[in-house]
Amino acid sequence: MIDSPLFTEADNAFMQEALSLAARGRFTTHPNPNVGCLIVRDNKVVGHGWHAQAGTPHAEVHALREAGVLAADSTVYVTLEPCSHFGRTPPCADALIKAGVARVVVAMQDPYFQVSGRGIKRLREHGIQVDCGLMEAAARRLNAGFIKRAEKGLPYVRLKMAASLDGRTALANGESKWITSAEARADVQLHRAASSAILSGAGTVLTDDPMLTVRPEQLPQGLYPEDMPIRPPVRVLVDNQNQLGPDLQLWQHSGPVWLARTTESSQPLPEQGQQLLVKSTAEQRVDLKDLMQTLASRDINDVWCETGSRLGGALLEAGLVDELIVYMAPKLLGPDARGLLDLSLLTDMAQVPEFEFESIERIGPDIKIVARLTT
Amino acid sequence: MIDSPLFTEADNAFMQEALSLAARGRFTTHPNPNVGCLIVRDNKVVGHGWHAQAGTPHAEVHALREAGVLAADSTVYVTLEPCSHFGRTPPCADALIKAGVARVVVAMQDPYFQVSGRGIKRLREHGIQVDCGLMEAAARRLNAGFIKRAEKGLPYVRLKMAASLDGRTALANGESKWITSAEARADVQLHRAASSAILSGAGTVLTDDPMLTVRPEQLPQGLYPEDMPIRPPVRVLVDNQNQLGPDLQLWQHSGPVWLARTTESSQPLPEQGQQLLVKSTAEQRVDLKDLMQTLASRDINDVWCETGSRLGGALLEAGLVDELIVYMAPKLLGPDARGLLDLSLLTDMAQVPEFEFESIERIGPDIKIVARLTT
Repeated sequence: MIDSPLFTEADNAFMQEALSLAARGRFTTHPNPNVGCLIVRDNKVVGHGWHAQAGTPHAEVHALREAGVLAADSTVYVTLEPCSHFGRTPPCADALIKAGVARVVVAMQDPYFQVSGRGIKRLREHGIQVDCGLMEAAARRLNAGFIKRAEKGLPYVRLKMAASLDGRTALANGESKWITSAEARADVQLHRAASSAILSGAGTVLTDDPMLTVRPEQLPQGLYPEDMPIRPPVRVLVDNQNQLGPDLQLWQHSGPVWLARTTESSQPLPEQGQQLLVKSTAEQRVDLKDLMQTLASRDINDVWCETGSRLGGALLEAGLVDELIVYMAPKLLGPDARGLLDLSLLTDMAQVPEFEFESIERIGPDIKIVARLTT
Repeated sequence: MIDSPLFTEADNAFMQEALSLAARGRFTTHPNPNVGCLIVRDNKVVGHGWHAQAGTPHAEVHALREAGVLAADSTVYVTLEPCSHFGRTPPCADALIKAGVARVVVAMQDPYFQVSGRGIKRLREHGIQVDCGLMEAAARRLNAGFIKRAEKGLPYVRLKMAASLDGRTALANGESKWITSAEARADVQLHRAASSAILSGAGTVLTDDPMLTVRPEQLPQGLYPEDMPIRPPVRVLVDNQNQLGPDLQLWQHSGPVWLARTTESSQPLPEQGQQLLVKSTAEQRVDLKDLMQTLASRDINDVWCETGSRLGGALLEAGLVDELIVYMAPKLLGPDARGLLDLSLLTDMAQVPEFEFESIERIGPDIKIVARLTT
C-alpha cells in the first residue's frame, strides 16, 4: 500500500530526522518498534518525539505535546503508521485528528495485524492528507525484527562471525576472543544491546563460560538516555543434551536465561533461568525453526547469534539467518584454525542461500562486513 | 633524506596532480618507474609531463618542453627525484638547471643506485631550492615494485585470492572463475596490466588452462593512451616437475612465458617460452626466494600472483608476499570448497606475517579487500 506522491527535498530531510529520532530507542523499545516523529509547521520543526519504552507514550504523543496548538495545520513525519487501536496507550491516529494536523507523511505501513492500514485509513477519513512510503527501505531496516515477526512469525536473525584474512575463525569453538580488536568487540556490544535476545550453544558456553551480557560501560556515551537502563537481552542457549547447569558464569548476571531443550531436565536452575521446550529433530537436536517460532511468540524481535561454527551452520542450513556480520582481522591463522561455518548438510550449491553486501566499514584495525539474505 | 619544510596547500594540490599524471603510465613504463611532473609559474600550471615508456623522454622533459621559456623562475613538482645520470636519455637535473627553474619539490628520493640523492644534490649545487618528502607515502605506493627492487633486490608481490563469505575459494585448485563477478574480473585485468609479471603454478595451469593475459578490451576506456599498447606482462609459471608442455592455451598469446624449473627439460617450447633455472629446495621444489631474486634481476618490479592455495601459501610462508588482495563474494560455499591458503609449514602463530588493511571497496556485487604487510 505504497502511494507514490512526489516527495519534496524538505520531506526527505524531515523524514531523515524522524528516522534518527526513532533510532534513539533502539536499546530500549523492544518488543515495540522504534518510531520517530517530527511535527513541522511553516517549514519549522515544532515538535519532536520518539518512542522510548513499551507502555510509555508513542512518538506522536511526545511530538504533539511539544507542538501544542502549533500542531494545527502542521505536517507530521512519522517513521511508522500511527496506531489505530487501544493498546497500553490510546490510538495515535485519534490524537493527530484531534490536534488538527493537515498532512501526515508515513515511512511505512505498520505490519502489526491490529494496525496494518487502519491508522492511515482513519486519518484519511478525517480529511487528513496521508502520503506513505517515504524512505520505506530505511524504516524497514530500523525495525527489521519487529516487521519480520509481524509478517512471518519469526525473529530477524543476525549471525556474527569473526574471521581472519584466510577465512578462519580462531578457536576451535568459533569464539573470537583473540582474533578481533577491542573496537570490534565494542561494536558487538552495540549489537547485543540492540537485540531482544543473544543466542549461543552449549558447546560455546561450556568451553568459554561467557557472560553474554551487555556491558553498558563499553557502549559509546550519548547513544541512549542515561535514565533509561538498557533492557538486558534474553540469553538463549541451545542445549541439546541438557548439559548446562547452575555452575556457569552467566548466572552471575540477573538478566533472563532461556535454555532451549527437547526434553525437560529436573536439575534446578537459578531464578532467572527457564527451560524452553522445543521440538526435536530426527537427530535429537533442538528444531531450530521451532525454537525461532517460540522466541517470536515470546516477543523476541531480533536475535543476535554468537555461536560456534556448527550451530551457526545449522541456523544457515535451516534458512533462519537474515544477516551475516563478519568481523575480519588482518591476520592469517593457518590450517589448524577452524572454518567459519559447518555447512555439513549442504550437498547442492543451489540450496545455499544468496546474500548481498549491505555495508563494509573499518572498525579499528579490523573491518566489518554485513551481508543480507536477498530472498 | 627527507627535509621537512612547511609545504603549502598549493604545493599539496600541485603534487597531487603530478601524482595523477604519473599514474597514467602505470600500464606502460615498467621496468621504469611512474613519474609525473608539473611546472608552475605565478600559481599557474605552464607544463605537464609524465613518463610513458622506457627509452622515451622523462616526465620533466615533457613538462619543460611545454613550459618553454616560462620554465624560468618556476616551481617544478616531480614525484620522483630527477635523474642525474646518462641512461637512455640525458639527465633531467641538468635540463632543469638549464631551464633556470627556481624551486623543485620532490615527493621522494630515487632509490636507484645511480641517482639516490645525486639529482637533488646537483640541483642544490646550482642554487635551486629543493624541498623533498611531500606526499612521499603516495609516491612510494605508486612505484612499490620499482622501489622494492631497488632497495631489496626483490619484486613487490601481490597475491590475489577469491573468497566466499565463509572463507572458501571455489574450485579445488583455487581458481575463482565462478565465485566473483564480471566487475571483479575486470579489476583483476587492471592489476594484471599494471604488473611486470603474472605468476601462477603448474597445477592451476594444467587444471584450468588459462591464458593469463591482459585483455585490453576489458579495461576501462581512457585509462591509458590508445596509441601506446600495454606491454604484456611476463607470465611466470612455477613448474616444479617440468609438466608444462607446448599444448597449452597460453601459448596462443605471443607475450613471453617463463617456466621456473629446478632442472632443465629438453622438451622444445614455443618461441615465446623460456626456461628459468632456479635453485631447488630440499623438497625438490622451486626455491621461491631465488625465483623472485631472479625475476628482479630481469627487471620485474611487480608480480601479480594468481595461484592455487598451495603456491599461495608457500609464497606467504617464504615471506615473499607484500600485499593480499581478496575479492569476496556474498556467497557461502560450504565445506567441500577449499580454503584460501595452505599454510602447511606454519606451526607457530608468531611466525605468521602481520598485515594491515589498506583499503576496502565495493566492486559490483563483491568487495575488494587489500591488506599490506606491516613489517
